[in-house]
Amino acid sequence: MSERILVGKALDVEPQFFDNKNVKSVTKRVLIGKKKGATNFVMRLFTVGEGGYSPHHSHPWEHEVFIISGEAAVVTDQGVINAGKGSYVFVPSGVKHQFRNTGNGDLEFLCVIPSSADEE
Amino acid sequence: MSERILVGKALDVEPQFFDNKNVKSVTKRVLIGKKKGATNFVMRLFTVGEGGYSPHHSHPWEHEVFIISGEAAVVTDQGVINAGKGSYVFVPSGVKHQFRNTGNGDLEFLCVIPSSADEE
Repeated sequence: MSERILVGKALDVEPQFFDNKNVKSVTKRVLIGKKKGATNFVMRLFTVGEGGYSPHHSHPWEHEVFIISGEAAVVTDQGVINAGKGSYVFVPSGVKHQFRNTGNGDLEFLCVIPSSADEE
Repeated sequence: MSERILVGKALDVEPQFFDNKNVKSVTKRVLIGKKKGATNFVMRLFTVGEGGYSPHHSHPWEHEVFIISGEAAVVTDQGVINAGKGSYVFVPSGVKHQFRNTGNGDLEFLCVIPSSADEE
């Protein structure tokens, strides 16, 4: 556990790039996670380029998402739901989902997951 | 547990206002929490008016914070740390902290806490 308050600029965090058959133009930054002493949940920042998308998948951990800028289409089994700047999205565990950038310019969103997830 | 993806606009969530001797000009909205089926952690949006501040306190649960807009001074036992738009702040459990709006206009930040916290 950390004993100190940590402050940093999100864009100074090392980016990870994803671009393959399941993911397009996605940059991920782990802002606060286990390496910084956070034991319960992980805050990540995603930047999705124009026309990009996250995987269309499900997993046993939930997402708590907040759209910082841009326009997203959330692909769900209930249909496609639009979510713009200032929207929240709760994806329960086990529910299939995808985030697609439907705007001009980048889509930026925060996505928080539990530390028990099989990723950071 | 919810089985559905929930999407909403943060500003449509009912606000709670705080203004007393410990807190000034603070509006809180619980975007995603137990009432929406989120069992592990809670995402809240805080809006702090010009000159406003959160309590200077500590508690047994951590904060994962992201500054959406405005300028904050984070008051810590290590000194005051400035955190502007696009900054993250990790407050470990048990560490004293306060967020002060030092900018012109509102300060907006997300603050995620574990569901075990004695608040929502």
